Amino acid sequence: MENGYTHIYTGNGKGKTTAALGLSLRAICSGKKVYFGQFVKGMKYNETKAVDHLPNFEIHQFGRNCFIYNDPTQEDIDAARKGLEVCKKVLSEGKYDIVVLDELTIALYYKLFSVEETIDMLKNKASHVEVIITGRYAPQELIELADLVTEMQEIKHYYQKGVEAREGIER
Amino acid sequence: MENGYTHIYTGNGKGKTTAALGLSLRAICSGKKVYFGQFVKGMKYNETKAVDHLPNFEIHQFGRNCFIYNDPTQEDIDAARKGLEVCKKVLSEGKYDIVVLDELTIALYYKLFSVEETIDMLKNKASHVEVIITGRYAPQELIELADLVTEMQEIKHYYQKGVEAREGIER
Repeated sequence: MENGYTHIYTGNGKGKTTAALGLSLRAICSGKKVYFGQFVKGMKYNETKAVDHLPNFEIHQFGRNCFIYNDPTQEDIDAARKGLEVCKKVLSEGKYDIVVLDELTIALYYKLFSVEETIDMLKNKASHVEVIITGRYAPQELIELADLVTEMQEIKHYYQKGVEAREGIER
Repeated sequence: MENGYTHIYTGNGKGKTTAALGLSLRAICSGKKVYFGQFVKGMKYNETKAVDHLPNFEIHQFGRNCFIYNDPTQEDIDAARKGLEVCKKVLSEGKYDIVVLDELTIALYYKLFSVEETIDMLKNKASHVEVIITGRYAPQELIELADLVTEMQEIKHYYQKGVEAREGIER
């Protein structure tokens, strides 16, 4: 079986989680199985309904029903650590062809778990599994380990004009 | 009905078409209708099979079965111009909530049609329609007109190591 690669979508621009969703859709169309883990997120985003349409697609959230604004709470830490344990298992078992670790770098940014634990998890993945990591502030250690890194740069955004996240577009 | 915005995903990095696919999936999960037009592409990418899974999703290709390497052929021009006419109609009729114009900027780069014709088409869209344009080399006139612009920057890519586009991942 072909060796799986590690992709990172980072940067302050729009489209990181969205690209991971698109990659999932394309992979499913080719008969692959996808596990989509969302760190720090617990809100019922529209993408969680994708399971109603797509075969071989699972999505699970490891966050509270709001973003972290200042310091993370114990609940944030517990949810992320639970996610880490679940994703470790999913990655090492290799039942899914693609494993998305959405906003993993945000979990690292808030020190909900460590870069070392993350690298350890990635080193213990089943070799054929393709890993997609998303989120701002990807640390240099992860960038070095990854095969593909894309930075989404914000050139223009309507949030700057006061438009809020819109149903079916950003969430 | 809310006014539709214009998004551009440009730059040399990975994930532009992929982000447009992800946005389509999320929009469909929220009950929206999506038209996905692919300029310059005629290859049977896996994403064309998404119609088997998703309701309210249409995808059409306006290109030949290969990329343009040097000068475009008459067939390239005819296919792109046909696409322009179809997309004009789709945009002005407003039956779809989201219209993706995938690789439109590549059609512009090869001068298959003009920036003026494109701007004209966008100005005549039904106001509620959300437009997603993808492709490298987005011209300044389009960036000025758009509400949201993200540049995908390539930080690291396995193509540089000789890995070719892979089934279910890039295509």
